[in-house]
Amino acid sequence: MDEQLRGKLKAVSTATLATALFKRGFRNQMIQGVLPLRARAGSMVGEAFTLRYIPAREDLNSIDVFSNPAHPQRAAIEQCPPGAVMVIDCRKDARAASAGNILVTRLMVRGVAGIVTDGGFRDAAEIAALDIAAYHQRPSAPTNLTLNQAVDINVPIGCGDAPVWPGDIVVGDTDGVIVIPAGIAAEIAAEAVEMTVFEDFVAERVMGGQSIVGLYPPTDPANLDLFKTWRTAKQR
Amino acid sequence: MDEQLRGKLKAVSTATLATALFKRGFRNQMIQGVLPLRARAGSMVGEAFTLRYIPAREDLNSIDVFSNPAHPQRAAIEQCPPGAVMVIDCRKDARAASAGNILVTRLMVRGVAGIVTDGGFRDAAEIAALDIAAYHQRPSAPTNLTLNQAVDINVPIGCGDAPVWPGDIVVGDTDGVIVIPAGIAAEIAAEAVEMTVFEDFVAERVMGGQSIVGLYPPTDPANLDLFKTWRTAKQR
Amino acid sequence: MDEQLRGKLKAVSTATLATALFKRGFRNQMIQGVLPLRARAGSMVGEAFTLRYIPAREDLNSIDVFSNPAHPQRAAIEQCPPGAVMVIDCRKDARAASAGNILVTRLMVRGVAGIVTDGGFRDAAEIAALDIAAYHQRPSAPTNLTLNQAVDINVPIGCGDAPVWPGDIVVGDTDGVIVIPAGIAAEIAAEAVEMTVFEDFVAERVMGGQSIVGLYPPTDPANLDLFKTWRTAKQR
Amino acid sequence: MDEQLRGKLKAVSTATLATALFKRGFRNQMIQGVLPLRARAGSMVGEAFTLRYIPAREDLNSIDVFSNPAHPQRAAIEQCPPGAVMVIDCRKDARAASAGNILVTRLMVRGVAGIVTDGGFRDAAEIAALDIAAYHQRPSAPTNLTLNQAVDINVPIGCGDAPVWPGDIVVGDTDGVIVIPAGIAAEIAAEAVEMTVFEDFVAERVMGGQSIVGLYPPTDPANLDLFKTWRTAKQR
Amino acid sequence: MDEQLRGKLKAVSTATLATALFKRGFRNQMIQGVLPLRARAGSMVGEAFTLRYIPAREDLNSIDVFSNPAHPQRAAIEQCPPGAVMVIDCRKDARAASAGNILVTRLMVRGVAGIVTDGGFRDAAEIAALDIAAYHQRPSAPTNLTLNQAVDINVPIGCGDAPVWPGDIVVGDTDGVIVIPAGIAAEIAAEAVEMTVFEDFVAERVMGGQSIVGLYPPTDPANLDLFKTWRTAKQR
Amino acid sequence: MDEQLRGKLKAVSTATLATALFKRGFRNQMIQGVLPLRARAGSMVGEAFTLRYIPAREDLNSIDVFSNPAHPQRAAIEQCPPGAVMVIDCRKDARAASAGNILVTRLMVRGVAGIVTDGGFRDAAEIAALDIAAYHQRPSAPTNLTLNQAVDINVPIGCGDAPVWPGDIVVGDTDGVIVIPAGIAAEIAAEAVEMTVFEDFVAERVMGGQSIVGLYPPTDPANLDLFKTWRTAKQR
Repeated sequence: MDEQLRGKLKAVSTATLATALFKRGFRNQMIQGVLPLRARAGSMVGEAFTLRYIPAREDLNSIDVFSNPAHPQRAAIEQCPPGAVMVIDCRKDARAASAGNILVTRLMVRGVAGIVTDGGFRDAAEIAALDIAAYHQRPSAPTNLTLNQAVDINVPIGCGDAPVWPGDIVVGDTDGVIVIPAGIAAEIAAEAVEMTVFEDFVAERVMGGQSIVGLYPPTDPANLDLFKTWRTAKQR
Repeated sequence: MDEQLRGKLKAVSTATLATALFKRGFRNQMIQGVLPLRARAGSMVGEAFTLRYIPAREDLNSIDVFSNPAHPQRAAIEQCPPGAVMVIDCRKDARAASAGNILVTRLMVRGVAGIVTDGGFRDAAEIAALDIAAYHQRPSAPTNLTLNQAVDINVPIGCGDAPVWPGDIVVGDTDGVIVIPAGIAAEIAAEAVEMTVFEDFVAERVMGGQSIVGLYPPTDPANLDLFKTWRTAKQR
Repeated sequence: MDEQLRGKLKAVSTATLATALFKRGFRNQMIQGVLPLRARAGSMVGEAFTLRYIPAREDLNSIDVFSNPAHPQRAAIEQCPPGAVMVIDCRKDARAASAGNILVTRLMVRGVAGIVTDGGFRDAAEIAALDIAAYHQRPSAPTNLTLNQAVDINVPIGCGDAPVWPGDIVVGDTDGVIVIPAGIAAEIAAEAVEMTVFEDFVAERVMGGQSIVGLYPPTDPANLDLFKTWRTAKQR
Repeated sequence: MDEQLRGKLKAVSTATLATALFKRGFRNQMIQGVLPLRARAGSMVGEAFTLRYIPAREDLNSIDVFSNPAHPQRAAIEQCPPGAVMVIDCRKDARAASAGNILVTRLMVRGVAGIVTDGGFRDAAEIAALDIAAYHQRPSAPTNLTLNQAVDINVPIGCGDAPVWPGDIVVGDTDGVIVIPAGIAAEIAAEAVEMTVFEDFVAERVMGGQSIVGLYPPTDPANLDLFKTWRTAKQR
Repeated sequence: MDEQLRGKLKAVSTATLATALFKRGFRNQMIQGVLPLRARAGSMVGEAFTLRYIPAREDLNSIDVFSNPAHPQRAAIEQCPPGAVMVIDCRKDARAASAGNILVTRLMVRGVAGIVTDGGFRDAAEIAALDIAAYHQRPSAPTNLTLNQAVDINVPIGCGDAPVWPGDIVVGDTDGVIVIPAGIAAEIAAEAVEMTVFEDFVAERVMGGQSIVGLYPPTDPANLDLFKTWRTAKQR
Repeated sequence: MDEQLRGKLKAVSTATLATALFKRGFRNQMIQGVLPLRARAGSMVGEAFTLRYIPAREDLNSIDVFSNPAHPQRAAIEQCPPGAVMVIDCRKDARAASAGNILVTRLMVRGVAGIVTDGGFRDAAEIAALDIAAYHQRPSAPTNLTLNQAVDINVPIGCGDAPVWPGDIVVGDTDGVIVIPAGIAAEIAAEAVEMTVFEDFVAERVMGGQSIVGLYPPTDPANLDLFKTWRTAKQR
């Protein structure tokens, strides 16, 4: 993805992005119920590369299926582009693992920006220590094959009740993960950057004792003047 | 599908099929949480024809999307083969409709054997009155577009936590819906027919006052003799 | 409420109303998870009269609180206007009753059109037999005081995850209950009546063997001509 | 159990019993989330005979375990006393059956008054047709062994979040099932009979147009006089 | 509120308070399912100041509603008294934010003791860093307007299934948040202080190797003597 | 338990054990939904000693029941063998405490290896600081008596949807808790130790840049050679 766009999105929050999306009629882009395994500086940003699981059927999911290098779970790990975010549709079921430490390490080494599942990871403490952003519902030790079968790579999926289309821009921070439709990512990023500047100003004013009335939102024009001055001073 | 196989399966219950599957290591073939809109004589039987929904994104799901005859939901209605069962992956979300009366009527007219969703139907009372079997979680009036977007036809899906592969044999009765892997449908049907004969014998004996000990299962050989005689007399 | 409006709404379904509301950007007006205690001819229609419950505190909810005629639950029963629909915010908690047979009988005698709770009624079989529409989640025998305390009459509430403002128009059928914002009830009703005429035409055509392509929606102009003729013939 | 007590309880509702229990500080005796497979005249009444299930471990639950007549599920069916109600702790899990038609038929033939599970029955339509009261959460076809293992007979259990002690008096009607502690069953029954007479009077008055104010509860002494007259006339 | 009372409550745990309330028949005063965003020394204590949300209706909740300084959410932020705890009824729905960093900062600056929602906060990491106690279910980035509409200030509400009346005393620690009815706060606090002294003694004895038998509770009088001595020595 | 076995299990993860169990047909041995109160070095290992709770009945659970030293909860605390893990069946209900700081301290002093509940602990922060492993769903301050009654010691139970038989081997790490059937604990431990050696090798290779194809699983024999060399070098 465009590195300037990535840079902008790394510096804004999912909360700000959610508001920008809300203004355009998008109410359902937050992946519900997932949190980062570890807080990190800067948001996770990348294009969505998706993986779809269905419930496992016992005869199709013995331990030896992974001997096949074309198995969709393993293939996805090797195909996910550097800089992308792998997003897994695990049907919000965290009773068995979506993936574990070795696979996520491989993604990290390959330069993938992050991995998100609406299920859970096994080896969660080890994944948390890796240099790749990871989001899930909760840790889950049972092998993936217990309840999940990977069937599709890079198709539109649902994840945590949000629609995720391949190529959408995925952003994650400590509040969770949001999905920006590809076609509006640039305008959303631009607006979010502007909103962030203003919110930083407001936060500073409120911390200094000013009331939110007339300031947030800035219905009192005096506050817009103050903002202008502040922004110039801050060179933002 | 083979009409002899269909005939056998129409005469056995999902409970009996579930036991036959359990004996072969399948523990997860029941579509959990769906019931028929109306009790009918004889089981619903047909090959699975699947439809996959994901969460709706607002800009892709305005009311005019149905003007496109290639829209997957509408295309599926016209493509589902006569005698098949349409199975919809609605992510167990019944807050918006999976389909309504007009589409299900079209399936009925086209000779489709049944329709199953792990979400809900709108116009449920009218669908219940049609001459096609229908199974869902609960009625749901909001239009499909509110929360669902059809994206795939005849791919493997999850429905009510069960795996459903296109071509699997789907059987439904008043207890719900079960999915038989295509490759073992014939042997499962044969075994279920045999089990049903024996269970009918047992039910009659128990109704007549016999204890279940030694009869169910028939650990006392005398009961196997009784069964043999009964079966001959009943010509089954 | 206006009796002409009531008449129109009695003749349309919640599914059709949901679509008309969806077209105007309302995605959340269906009271989720409630069903009628008994199917009835014609929809329930009336203005919302609301009752708000909070969790019961033991010292404020002994059995003798009902001796007070000003107790909000009992006052609401006597104040709810004839023709209105009482809607109770029971926090989607059906572990104790929202009301029972005697109170609902009183509403019926007073001419109230219906009662809706996102909890459950006790004496459900007796309420089902009354000549008043009633909707709930499931039967629930424990006295209201066990878990609920009525605190407010005719304030805005949530019911089954939908917003309900006093004076909104509430419509219920076998699919459930929908809430029409008061200010647009007339236009929604008018549109729903028109939609119903067209859907009846479509249902008849589909039952007669016509494909949905070009008919539903009517992208083929020939179908609009057929509709015109049909409508004239039917005098609708 | 005492047949006079049984007679009294057959004629009162679970709602009335719940109120009598509430007055004595019992808030949690209703088995939550279970309904009868079929409405019947007169309440189900009997002493609790319990059966406890735990999650099934695969190696202990192959299909041949039922060959052992001492298997707790099968033993319980033969041991449950006539007139009693079998109550099963299925951990509120209805993904596999608690029992099926043959076992429930055996209970019926043996004179057992009813069976209750917080899971589900297979062959639900056939059980509904039997002459024994049965209550569950929903139908469930998969064999019991899939997820359940019977381990204990007649120990204290939880069922639908209610405590059930062997010998407690279990009463079921169309609202569900309630559990009366054995030691207070007689006084609860006596009070419920009295309450029922008064509620029948109130229902008749309300049906005739009287307001609930001063009547329900009877804070206006005039209503107590009316009641006295009514009761004498009705010979109750 | 009385500062001596506040001081006592800051030094006791919600667990101890829950037991003191249980002894008086209160079983439902814990706000279920909320945790602090950050562990802090000393309990959060303050009088309840409540805010009630209902589900958002799209036409009433565009982004510009916050331009109105009388909007109940914004008004509440400016009205909540210093030393109080703002408690929000968000219907246990954490899919959209109850509030964010700027509003909580304003509460902090105004001297409010804490904020509690049964939904979730956006900007959760920033709120965690503030010098004000905050409790929620989980982080949630989507703007409040997505699913919530503030309608009432300082009315009785439910929060996490507990009743909260304005003026009740709210206490929070790492186990969660409990609500003490205003009228008994002084006696509950006094008893909890006493209980805490005894529990500290017990904990020390148990850590030193003594059995809990006869000590917890102190059925062996020797332990009461030991306690007396210990208490004198500790000057508590 | 055998100390060599304990040593082996302390050095392997629940994820690896889950895979070893899955290979033998065990899909349901993970206690779902519980996490450690604090991360610790080395896994918790011990034989299961069980405690069974049922829903509390008010008349049997006043605060003075703990004066009885034979009360099953208190008796269990004194009987649980050193080195064992106490596992509590709390019906996945965390609305009231399973135990608190004083009881868990007593277990620690007595040398018990850990405590697990599918409910929640009160005084969670204090328990987290103790030198005993503890796992629960979430903190919960209300006294145990509010909703729970201990009835049985060392019977088979369900915990977090897993079967737990007394004497099973319980292992916990940061992913959660798994239950190994006693009869196969030695072989599972041996296999898990071997698997761990290989997974450590794989993790090192992947961290170093090698693809997972042919390595994980090792379908390319060259990788088995590399592993042999690595293992010799590492002396494992």
